[in-house]
Amino acid sequence: MNPRIDVVVCEVGLRDGLQLVQEFFPTAEKLAWIEAEAAAGMPEIEVTSFVPAKIVPQFTDAEEVVTRALGIGGLTVGALVPNLKGAERGFALGVHKLNFVLSVSRTHNLKNVRREREESVADFRRIVEMRNARGTRPMLVGGLSTALGCSYEGRIPVDDVRRFAAQLAEAGADEILVADTVGYGDPAQVRAVFKAVMAEVGRLPVGAHFHDTRGTGLANVAAALDCGVRRFDASLAGLGGCPFAPGASGNIVMEDLCFMLDSMGLRTGIDLNRLIALREILERNLAGTEMHGAIARAGLPKHYVAAADRPLAIA
Amino acid sequence: MNPRIDVVVCEVGLRDGLQLVQEFFPTAEKLAWIEAEAAAGMPEIEVTSFVPAKIVPQFTDAEEVVTRALGIGGLTVGALVPNLKGAERGFALGVHKLNFVLSVSRTHNLKNVRREREESVADFRRIVEMRNARGTRPMLVGGLSTALGCSYEGRIPVDDVRRFAAQLAEAGADEILVADTVGYGDPAQVRAVFKAVMAEVGRLPVGAHFHDTRGTGLANVAAALDCGVRRFDASLAGLGGCPFAPGASGNIVMEDLCFMLDSMGLRTGIDLNRLIALREILERNLAGTEMHGAIARAGLPKHYVAAADRPLAIA
Repeated sequence: MNPRIDVVVCEVGLRDGLQLVQEFFPTAEKLAWIEAEAAAGMPEIEVTSFVPAKIVPQFTDAEEVVTRALGIGGLTVGALVPNLKGAERGFALGVHKLNFVLSVSRTHNLKNVRREREESVADFRRIVEMRNARGTRPMLVGGLSTALGCSYEGRIPVDDVRRFAAQLAEAGADEILVADTVGYGDPAQVRAVFKAVMAEVGRLPVGAHFHDTRGTGLANVAAALDCGVRRFDASLAGLGGCPFAPGASGNIVMEDLCFMLDSMGLRTGIDLNRLIALREILERNLAGTEMHGAIARAGLPKHYVAAADRPLAIA
Repeated sequence: MNPRIDVVVCEVGLRDGLQLVQEFFPTAEKLAWIEAEAAAGMPEIEVTSFVPAKIVPQFTDAEEVVTRALGIGGLTVGALVPNLKGAERGFALGVHKLNFVLSVSRTHNLKNVRREREESVADFRRIVEMRNARGTRPMLVGGLSTALGCSYEGRIPVDDVRRFAAQLAEAGADEILVADTVGYGDPAQVRAVFKAVMAEVGRLPVGAHFHDTRGTGLANVAAALDCGVRRFDASLAGLGGCPFAPGASGNIVMEDLCFMLDSMGLRTGIDLNRLIALREILERNLAGTEMHGAIARAGLPKHYVAAADRPLAIA
């Protein structure tokens, strides 16, 4: 981690956002987005998903996008992998980080990857073994989706999240990512879940992936910060959504997240004005898609001084 | 306070929202809104402002609205007062609560009420004396606007907020209300400001009035909850705004606030579905005005159980 960064944010719009966009987002425009966001200071971008191109045609260009993104100095390039086959593709390209996802909701895991959760843990263990046989790269992230609720099952017991976090850690995860896939979480629940997970896998970094579907996204970030979480996913203009809630907002808005963190005195390494200007790339490519976010509309506060430029941190 | 309520929320859309609406919102429709929201469980509504009708024609019907609202059983009826003249109108009507506002930002106070802040404190003291001469009613709230930032001055020193909170308390306020008038606040700042104010005026209830102009509204609520704040203003559909940020969102959204609190296990007394259904009153009267809010679009989580119906509180 850059010693001048207090909190690592990761752009996931190219994966979590674009996976719901039917129209193909041109490869050159994906790369323009990645390059411009890296130039604005984004330390990490999940650039694609290694799902079969037949299932999500949006990611047909996964190989090209990863290869080109790896040429950007200083950027950590991540990709989602649903299974071993996807992991092999990632290994072959030399991607920095692979995000493996298990749904804590049994029903969701069965529907999403047609596997029992224990089978998914076994898959992850095999990915770790494959990676270990090759060396130390890529980093392997054990993601726990639907950890704060599920559109099929509703509330998810905290102890289930804790248990599968422990299993992914034991299987060899380099990092744990707790995801509120459908935006059900509230700050009290976030505290309960993250405290339990961090007590269990304390030696590993634990990141948070929140959605803002019900307006609680940044409140959940604040609660996770209190628990010591220092890694957050978000997407430019909140690109994303939830197939179960048409018209609802999706991922937390990167611009608003970075503003809140920076305002709190937590340095992200991001230039807020350059980040906000990036929305133009989405506007020109996603006509008709709603652009979320408050700071882009309201502007920075009067006389605003970025965290990195303040004599003393406020937080 | 109702013993079955953990957090008191107060609807301010009829005042803070409508004061920016040029077109007159029909008196009968204001009353329909007040009645329906009270029926949904809203414990307190700021129904109007006793500003001169010449300055804000929207409040020409202040007397009628207050009189009719006072007829609704169980509802605490509040109104904003900018000065002594406004307080006299409130006293005459028998309103339950008068919200007096002082801007902690000197520049803002001078522009808003053409007075030094100390003169505003003196005005408030006279209002308290007038009230005391009559008896114990109405309750007098000492409001501190621009407490988390000002469109002229930028950041406001925490010590200024603390100091004017102390002066309003000393002058006889029954309650202190700390307001982020322009939506500059972040959770770290909220903690600093509320801790300082509550340490100073600890014997009085301290409420929070947040705006969501920069996306931090509910995160600030979560931070204030941590400080022990149990009173929050909000407006239906986030009605309101900021004349300095055209198109930006205004007050925090009542529906989202109540959902978050309820999800956290904090009872508000509000029926969420009835509250969400109330947006229709705004839709039919404010064509073209943007309706904010996430929960109304996304819907309650699957198998959601209201806080009041749970066997054990989660928070």
